[in-house]
Amino acid sequence: MRPYNFSAGPAVMPDEVLRQAADEMLDWHGSGMGVMEMSHRGKEFGQIYAEAQADLRELLAVPDHFKLLFMQGGGLAENAIVPLNLSGGHTADFVVTGSWSEKSLAEAGRYCTAHEAASTKADGHTTLAAPASWQLSSKPAYVHICSNETINGVEYHELPDLKALGCEAPLVLDFSSHVASRPVDWSRVGVAFGGAQKNLGPAGLTLVVVHDDLLDRALPICPSAFHYKTVADNQSMYNTPPTYSIYIAGLVFKWLKAQGGISAIEARNIAKAKLLYDAIDSSSLFVNRVARDCRSRMNVPFYLRDEGLNDAFLAGARDRDLLQLKGHKSVGGMRASIYNAMSIEGVQALVNYMCDFEAQRG
Amino acid sequence: MRPYNFSAGPAVMPDEVLRQAADEMLDWHGSGMGVMEMSHRGKEFGQIYAEAQADLRELLAVPDHFKLLFMQGGGLAENAIVPLNLSGGHTADFVVTGSWSEKSLAEAGRYCTAHEAASTKADGHTTLAAPASWQLSSKPAYVHICSNETINGVEYHELPDLKALGCEAPLVLDFSSHVASRPVDWSRVGVAFGGAQKNLGPAGLTLVVVHDDLLDRALPICPSAFHYKTVADNQSMYNTPPTYSIYIAGLVFKWLKAQGGISAIEARNIAKAKLLYDAIDSSSLFVNRVARDCRSRMNVPFYLRDEGLNDAFLAGARDRDLLQLKGHKSVGGMRASIYNAMSIEGVQALVNYMCDFEAQRG
Repeated sequence: MRPYNFSAGPAVMPDEVLRQAADEMLDWHGSGMGVMEMSHRGKEFGQIYAEAQADLRELLAVPDHFKLLFMQGGGLAENAIVPLNLSGGHTADFVVTGSWSEKSLAEAGRYCTAHEAASTKADGHTTLAAPASWQLSSKPAYVHICSNETINGVEYHELPDLKALGCEAPLVLDFSSHVASRPVDWSRVGVAFGGAQKNLGPAGLTLVVVHDDLLDRALPICPSAFHYKTVADNQSMYNTPPTYSIYIAGLVFKWLKAQGGISAIEARNIAKAKLLYDAIDSSSLFVNRVARDCRSRMNVPFYLRDEGLNDAFLAGARDRDLLQLKGHKSVGGMRASIYNAMSIEGVQALVNYMCDFEAQRG
Repeated sequence: MRPYNFSAGPAVMPDEVLRQAADEMLDWHGSGMGVMEMSHRGKEFGQIYAEAQADLRELLAVPDHFKLLFMQGGGLAENAIVPLNLSGGHTADFVVTGSWSEKSLAEAGRYCTAHEAASTKADGHTTLAAPASWQLSSKPAYVHICSNETINGVEYHELPDLKALGCEAPLVLDFSSHVASRPVDWSRVGVAFGGAQKNLGPAGLTLVVVHDDLLDRALPICPSAFHYKTVADNQSMYNTPPTYSIYIAGLVFKWLKAQGGISAIEARNIAKAKLLYDAIDSSSLFVNRVARDCRSRMNVPFYLRDEGLNDAFLAGARDRDLLQLKGHKSVGGMRASIYNAMSIEGVQALVNYMCDFEAQRG
């Protein structure tokens, strides 16, 4: 059995996916080629691409009036690519709930007036500002949120309904670190983007889901390779796509379907998160500072009340084959990322260790 | 034995590289993690990254005053990223010798005055315009060439010396499809970029080699993720890099070193190209239209004088396990891409087949 890997991303992958990828490395389905070696224009990769698109659309229940784009550059590139495509050089609104939405706000300022509609900075990003409290501008080109903050561990458990706030602008969602962990209410979404390296596949692939109405609003300075309509019109092959990463993501999609799809995986994610948060909340040694109604199911940051024990905790974890638990350098402490591919047994092993660690020091 | 794969990219990889990648898929060096699952900030990936950088610098003999950047988006993204970084919004010069340099010229027009200094369009891109004939503008921000045109099969066998032309501008090189196939005279280069998917590794990784003096000239509208200085200052980890692709490229670099380095691989590439061009030139059925002094060692487009035989030629090739020989749709005919990982045995098998095909129809 392999160690349990709690990395925030790139992150643990399902064993079955890695085994199949290893088996097919030199010869995909009798083609005589590994997937890495196939022309993206050939029929073999064409099949891989089409199945990945269809499986993902089915899994996430994406309506037909959205395009699924396989792009490159990750969320940080999308922080520029979104305003290049959607802002029209006007005003866009940002709700800052942690490190990632803060970066999105800063980068957008190169292309438009980036307006901070709300911020939870004052409470250390441990809450989500209620949509009713947002100070939206009068006619924003779009409203951006990060629906799961990987570093701060806050998650929207319901997407904001902009129309109910009297705002006709499209909602832009950075869902990098919880995509495919739960259903998405597409009726509230204009664009959703995410790096693959948490729940979908290898780093270097970026998923962008775009409402058809928003494909062709780009500024003239938008690079062709990042212009949503150009990408969509060319089936994500205007430039050579990250073919191997798309293949691996496709295997992950088939694995997700075999698990029972998103509703089954969501139930498991809820159980995993409850197990870990309950252990933290019932402990006198560990603490999670995020308000209970917006705690992330995917990224669980926690602290030892006695920070002097941090190194001992991490060393003991490694001895038990519990890997990559150190928190992000900007916030310190610990972080357990428990993405789709982390089993409940893995979370139980972490909880057992935390209990033992506390008992030894109790 | 596997079939011989002549794809123009993504392209054949060394068997040894794919075998090692398959072996290490679930556990890299006893870490308990596959490379796809590692944090890019961890010590394990840090080692992979550092070795890839050092091996590539050694192989290509890149001087210390150049940075090696691992980026995303491929050559078509760089067509925008280069003028965003280097043009200053002024004039840049382009030498159009085929499809790729033509695209570079068109895309740059979004950001600067893109001046066509020369074009070989009139002769169907079967020659290279001599540098002495170029109509350079008076003070271009840079001069762009594609040093190997993948589709048209023309290659610079000596890089132009801009200083000798009285031009102080930096030379920008799109060397996607022949990087690492021959040495580079870095004294003549400002920036060189290339997608990995021909000679370096999987699609989705882009190599950019930038002279230190050119790192920090970007326009304010340059996305942070594509700003050369930001990428360099963050060791290619401003955004999450394509970690698995970097790992595979690193294995390719070690394979190249084991082959004897670039001078040994160049000697083999010269022999492979001679074998194939000699067969074409001595045939009455096949023809290559490129001028002899600028024929590409990597991409060999050729035509059957009787185009009615195209389908029979391709079907017979597949029967002999010779794959992906169909030419690019924009030029038709056939193309054999014979990158570093194509063995001389593979080229010999193709030549044998061509001789047999001709004999049967003689």
